[in-house]
Amino acid sequence: MAKTNAQVKTAMAEKLVYSFGASGADGKGAMKELLGGKGANLAEMCALGLPVPPGFTITTDMCVYYYQNGKKLHGALKAQVEEALAKVEKTVGAKFGDGDNPLLLSVRSGARASMPGMMDTVLNLGLNDKTAKALAKKTGNERFAYDSYRRFIQMYSDVVLALDHYHFEEMLDQKKRDRDVVLDTELNAADLKDLVSQYKAKVQEELGKPFPEDVHAQLWGAIGAVFNSWMSARACTYRKLHDIPESWGTAVTVQSMVFGNMGNDCATGVAFTRNPSTGEKKYYGEFLINAQGEDVVAGIRTPQPMHEMPAVMPEVYQQLVTVFELLETHYRDMQDIEFTIQNNKLWMLQTRNGKRTAAAAVKIAVDMVAEKRIDIKQALKRIDPLSLDQLLHPTLDPKAKKTVLATGLPASPGAASGKVVFTAEDAEIMALTHKEKVILVRIETSPEDIHGMHAAQGILTARGGMTSHAAVVARGMGKPCVSGAGSLSIDYAKKECKVMGHTLREGDIITINGGSGEVMLGEIPTVQPALSKDFETLMGWADEVRTLKVRANAETPLDATVARKFGAEGIGLCRTEHMFFDQSRIVAMREMIVAQEAGGRKAALAKLLPMQRNDFVELFRIMGGLPVTIRLLDPPLHEFLPHTEDDIKQVANAAGVSVETVRQRAHELKEQNPMLGHRGCRLGITYPEIYEMQATAIFEAAAIINKEQKGAVIPEIMVPLVMIPKELEILKALIDKVAADVQKKSGVEITYLVGTMIELPRAALRAADIAKSAEFFSFGTNDLTQTTLGISRDDSASFIEIYKQKGIVEVDPFVSLDQSGVGELIMIAAERGRKTQPLLKLGICGEHGGDPASIAFFRKAGLDYVSCSPYRVPVARLAAALAEL
Amino acid sequence: MAKTNAQVKTAMAEKLVYSFGASGADGKGAMKELLGGKGANLAEMCALGLPVPPGFTITTDMCVYYYQNGKKLHGALKAQVEEALAKVEKTVGAKFGDGDNPLLLSVRSGARASMPGMMDTVLNLGLNDKTAKALAKKTGNERFAYDSYRRFIQMYSDVVLALDHYHFEEMLDQKKRDRDVVLDTELNAADLKDLVSQYKAKVQEELGKPFPEDVHAQLWGAIGAVFNSWMSARACTYRKLHDIPESWGTAVTVQSMVFGNMGNDCATGVAFTRNPSTGEKKYYGEFLINAQGEDVVAGIRTPQPMHEMPAVMPEVYQQLVTVFELLETHYRDMQDIEFTIQNNKLWMLQTRNGKRTAAAAVKIAVDMVAEKRIDIKQALKRIDPLSLDQLLHPTLDPKAKKTVLATGLPASPGAASGKVVFTAEDAEIMALTHKEKVILVRIETSPEDIHGMHAAQGILTARGGMTSHAAVVARGMGKPCVSGAGSLSIDYAKKECKVMGHTLREGDIITINGGSGEVMLGEIPTVQPALSKDFETLMGWADEVRTLKVRANAETPLDATVARKFGAEGIGLCRTEHMFFDQSRIVAMREMIVAQEAGGRKAALAKLLPMQRNDFVELFRIMGGLPVTIRLLDPPLHEFLPHTEDDIKQVANAAGVSVETVRQRAHELKEQNPMLGHRGCRLGITYPEIYEMQATAIFEAAAIINKEQKGAVIPEIMVPLVMIPKELEILKALIDKVAADVQKKSGVEITYLVGTMIELPRAALRAADIAKSAEFFSFGTNDLTQTTLGISRDDSASFIEIYKQKGIVEVDPFVSLDQSGVGELIMIAAERGRKTQPLLKLGICGEHGGDPASIAFFRKAGLDYVSCSPYRVPVARLAAALAEL
Repeated sequence: MAKTNAQVKTAMAEKLVYSFGASGADGKGAMKELLGGKGANLAEMCALGLPVPPGFTITTDMCVYYYQNGKKLHGALKAQVEEALAKVEKTVGAKFGDGDNPLLLSVRSGARASMPGMMDTVLNLGLNDKTAKALAKKTGNERFAYDSYRRFIQMYSDVVLALDHYHFEEMLDQKKRDRDVVLDTELNAADLKDLVSQYKAKVQEELGKPFPEDVHAQLWGAIGAVFNSWMSARACTYRKLHDIPESWGTAVTVQSMVFGNMGNDCATGVAFTRNPSTGEKKYYGEFLINAQGEDVVAGIRTPQPMHEMPAVMPEVYQQLVTVFELLETHYRDMQDIEFTIQNNKLWMLQTRNGKRTAAAAVKIAVDMVAEKRIDIKQALKRIDPLSLDQLLHPTLDPKAKKTVLATGLPASPGAASGKVVFTAEDAEIMALTHKEKVILVRIETSPEDIHGMHAAQGILTARGGMTSHAAVVARGMGKPCVSGAGSLSIDYAKKECKVMGHTLREGDIITINGGSGEVMLGEIPTVQPALSKDFETLMGWADEVRTLKVRANAETPLDATVARKFGAEGIGLCRTEHMFFDQSRIVAMREMIVAQEAGGRKAALAKLLPMQRNDFVELFRIMGGLPVTIRLLDPPLHEFLPHTEDDIKQVANAAGVSVETVRQRAHELKEQNPMLGHRGCRLGITYPEIYEMQATAIFEAAAIINKEQKGAVIPEIMVPLVMIPKELEILKALIDKVAADVQKKSGVEITYLVGTMIELPRAALRAADIAKSAEFFSFGTNDLTQTTLGISRDDSASFIEIYKQKGIVEVDPFVSLDQSGVGELIMIAAERGRKTQPLLKLGICGEHGGDPASIAFFRKAGLDYVSCSPYRVPVARLAAALAEL
Repeated sequence: MAKTNAQVKTAMAEKLVYSFGASGADGKGAMKELLGGKGANLAEMCALGLPVPPGFTITTDMCVYYYQNGKKLHGALKAQVEEALAKVEKTVGAKFGDGDNPLLLSVRSGARASMPGMMDTVLNLGLNDKTAKALAKKTGNERFAYDSYRRFIQMYSDVVLALDHYHFEEMLDQKKRDRDVVLDTELNAADLKDLVSQYKAKVQEELGKPFPEDVHAQLWGAIGAVFNSWMSARACTYRKLHDIPESWGTAVTVQSMVFGNMGNDCATGVAFTRNPSTGEKKYYGEFLINAQGEDVVAGIRTPQPMHEMPAVMPEVYQQLVTVFELLETHYRDMQDIEFTIQNNKLWMLQTRNGKRTAAAAVKIAVDMVAEKRIDIKQALKRIDPLSLDQLLHPTLDPKAKKTVLATGLPASPGAASGKVVFTAEDAEIMALTHKEKVILVRIETSPEDIHGMHAAQGILTARGGMTSHAAVVARGMGKPCVSGAGSLSIDYAKKECKVMGHTLREGDIITINGGSGEVMLGEIPTVQPALSKDFETLMGWADEVRTLKVRANAETPLDATVARKFGAEGIGLCRTEHMFFDQSRIVAMREMIVAQEAGGRKAALAKLLPMQRNDFVELFRIMGGLPVTIRLLDPPLHEFLPHTEDDIKQVANAAGVSVETVRQRAHELKEQNPMLGHRGCRLGITYPEIYEMQATAIFEAAAIINKEQKGAVIPEIMVPLVMIPKELEILKALIDKVAADVQKKSGVEITYLVGTMIELPRAALRAADIAKSAEFFSFGTNDLTQTTLGISRDDSASFIEIYKQKGIVEVDPFVSLDQSGVGELIMIAAERGRKTQPLLKLGICGEHGGDPASIAFFRKAGLDYVSCSPYRVPVARLAAALAEL
């Protein structure tokens, strides 16, 4: 929240400036709101007694004041800054602007949240003609002094005086040409002195006034520039993107300079207390002798790895080791450190929790529990559940070179290479017959493409969002997918695809990275994942903590096997329609649809029954007694109908009708808005024989399994798209009748549940009545999101990105649950449903079942389980544990 | 609710049988639940002292008991029936089964609600060989006696013994052939006696037992048959269709017979106390001397009109007049009466409130207020608001002969004839250029057809429900429409349509009746409506009573004019997109859509601006200061794109792009579920220049009007499809900016409101936040129904009929509001919205705005107004009044 002017004014009476240095600090690490991340961290290090160049921090309140008062600084600030500066001078034993022993300063921004590179910094502040001479004399290094002076003028002019740095770079280049040298370091002190004169003349020429000689004017100029940079265009954009409130403001940290470039007893470096890539407990980092931080970045000289330091600077290395241990003990996490060594003295410039790969995060968390630095709960909290995805899919070898052709949406993680094919049929032929690895490239996919998606290594589409058909199915299969790569122009007829002036033809090899959305030419080597012992340990801890069960959405034996491997506690959604797309079944399915009468439909369904029964037998066997929720047919029938002439003929032959009849039927079944059409239980009501066949297959399969082992499976039959209690009432009666018949005929007792999906707003509102015929509810949050928000997820790509840019939505509501809209309906349904049936089992089986933020909400809403794609199960297990903490 | 067995048993201790007769009655008119409509009515007439043949009624409870006890009659029933029968014998002075003076009975069913013709009746019960002889002797009319006996055997055998009547009809025909006569009446007593013997022999032959001679056995057989007929297939179907609970049961009324066929001082008749067709205060009806009711039905002899009765039977006529006056005074409504005159004595068999046309209903109600029989409120309650529709549209001349080709849905009332055309273009050419009346026949219509719909007299579609595009637009235009006439097979290429073996070609003349759904060959004459003074009076009363305002959905000057004529108090929905389909505008609209950049869009929009401004000037002028709510562009852009080659070329030329680009753009804009796609305010967010143009047009028009007369128009600008408060916030800012600009430029002050449609469940839930930027909410119940129920109204036809048949829904939720689902969201939104803004104006502008049941709900929900199609305005005015009563 923005502070009001009054609140800020009250704060004024107090402390505006916080000092830190050898003798400790006014602030501390917890004061990030007031001192910014950098200021608070430096204060904390001082408090720990670490060697930090002394300085002070002007609070974020002063930035707020600055903007609330027409960009004026607070009247009391000057005195407090002078006081703090005096303290620094005393500690360092140098004086700001002094002609003998000048103090030099850095001026940096520091917001509450890190905004790397977004705001301005000025180094070497306090140099002028007089102090430069003094610095040269004091350090005995004239070249160093004038190089610093030159750099300062350029940086200050750029940041504070708004004079573009190219002016100065031109002069520097000219000087090197004149002197016939290549590197800056080849210029001598005289060259640099001359450049300083030229720079100052340029400032006078461009701005009509001289470069400020007064060091205090320099300081206030830099402080104002930092405040101004808070409202720079790039900072505003960054804040918008990262949801950082403008009202926070930035702090300004003014710190005495230290130099790693004053000789061979100087150095600069960065280090991690553990390996951020693997998590191994070994110091990791690099240092560069006689250099400044920017020299490391420039990459002209190659830094040395940390393990060479004991040999070069043994004493300083020992100091560093002590600091590393101290910091890990203090922060109880792996640290990312910046330091400078000036004349064999170590100075700490920065410490923060280090970024790391998912693998490293897991290893570090588990190791730290063993080291008793943290407990199990803390270890769990250290892992971003989403990052686990990295561990479960093959990834591109980070060392490989790559030519990126296009970038789409990172729809399903993992990387895959293969030959380009443009149809599901070609994918199947190439993969199964020719044993080729293929990438299926489509404008978009439909349920008919599923066999091709199964056959392919990965899927690439030109259209569709993160929750398009391709994306959802690919994630379910754990296959890499890049969707919505809009720059692809696919021509199915020619079997080619134009992208960025390049033409991909069938058979060309590409690689896709479903984790980044990149599409690359040729085969890029990938690295296979291996689930470490540490990973298993961590998952075990998560399972101990969580109360929310985790199931998987799965329908094939492969899916089910993967789901169990990843720890799923059952199947929360078995989409039976996916079982009908197989080449051997689709014809019978189509026959059924083409039939005009119930009799014809029943004949076709009779062909499907044994296949479907066998599907369930296999599934039940793999799941070995875990609950299996089976959703009866959901999609509109036209999704199954043929489009090609050959397929239409085949169906006509099989059904014994004319081609015209098939075409007519397809036309009749076409819908304006299939999502809101004749689907879900509406099919069960209008064509009861379909659900009857499916229920028969389920119960017959259960009878087979239960004959082998009594009570080995308790199927949960789920009726989709219920909007009116009576729909469920009628269909439950049908299912109960089939169950009774099968039990009688087989002589095997079957326990089963009948429930419904809550995926329409009306169903959520009428949950009390629906619960009268339901033993469980499963929230279908995909459809519930579509209907509650009135957004078709297939069509949302055309505006959802703009909605994100304009800050209308923070995240795609199909990725993370819209808690205040859809969430309220879930709360209502849970409450009303349980009022009727206190023991009603509640789950969720939409895409949100694998999203950590949504999982936390589902826990709060009192759900019993979430169900997600098999590859998301570990993510969900961890997220469910975190929801408890 | 079904009574439990226990409840029925308790009632048993009490009265099972209710007598009525000359001395009054045990029951009364208010006891319909227990005595059925007929029994209660007869009791009431007795209580009024009217001459009713005495009898008794067995309660509906006895029917419930019968079914709850395995079709057994209650033990105490026999005694009570015998007691009541004795009373009848005493009153009539005849004895049941007596050999001298036999009592004859009728046995009839009578449920709480009228179920005409659904259950069984037995007349002349009590005849056997002995009593027939006695009847002959007593009446001195042997022919009459044996004709009655013959009829009784046939009816009883059919109803009670389940022996089909064709057996008897055959014998009757044979007898007439033998005797060489044509009419039944030409048979003499001997013939009939012989037939009686033949009939009885037939019964013995078919059933193996004789026809019952025992009159008590006859009575109990008939009572059982009436109870059984309650569960007959046709009765069950009727109840399902009319939503009558099975648990109600039927009563049985046993009444002494009277005869209108005993000589020329006898007659039978039906009469209305006023003219049921016009409402004129004149007795209306007909009578037939020496006849039974069934003779009137048979139509062999022509009955005489009532006004001839004074000349023929002056005394009885005077009795009748007295009875008419008494009944109208008692029931305070026009009565529909059945009577029989036996030997110059009047017997009343039935009275009930008479059915009447809408015109008659209005006249009778207004007259009865003048006569001080009823007050204004009662008058209003007498009119079914929906019936007013009849008065507002041309109707088919009821006397004309017609050949019905097909029947579809009665989508928009009124009748129209014209030449068949199959495209909107042909409709326009034929109508505008050749001044022909045409009927536009389409498989279904789309917004592109609107100009053709305007040009046509009526619209006929093969597909689409009561709320399909064709239906909604036609109702809006007040044009007749028959939709979803599935038996039409339309071939656009050949410009012909096959239906029922008949081929309709372009130019053939048909007539459609949008009130009945009939499609007829040739031109059937129609009758134009004239709004009577009585109608105006009634509407005036409705306006005095109601608090809910009524506005109209209108966008054309014609619509607006009609709306005002019918008493609309403003425009509640002006759909601006309809303004773009005009031939002169669609090209610019398409140019705008095809443009790749905002610049191109703005150039095209600049062409549309003056046209749109002019639309609003016209509309504001017609509405003369009444509020006008204008909805900014709502449908997805692809609705405007061309399909034909010529149109595509035209757009490409106009926009200066290639045909390929236009096609590509059309392809890009295609959506899976357009209803949930890139439409509504999503267009305003992504292409702000469109809404900017529209707002400019509105404010510039308002400035023109307000310059003429200060404050003459207060436009209400409505943003559609808001789901997130921020959408409205952003667009309100845009609108406010345009308003400020126009006011500054024109120097005219404009007062205006900005509001939103609540048409997504999320919007209803987040109403508290949305209300922060809204000055009004208008519930878009069409879309809110689509999203809350997850039903696309364009696709619902394929299952909604089956849902009605199975009793899952009572009415199409697009016709009458789903109060317990959508209704709850409306309640939530109203409450939350007004919590933020207590004075928030609330309206509704979906199809439900013209549905009386929905209007009653909107009143309860606290809405300020409803808006409906212009032709529905009187319906809504009356319904709104009724909602108060």
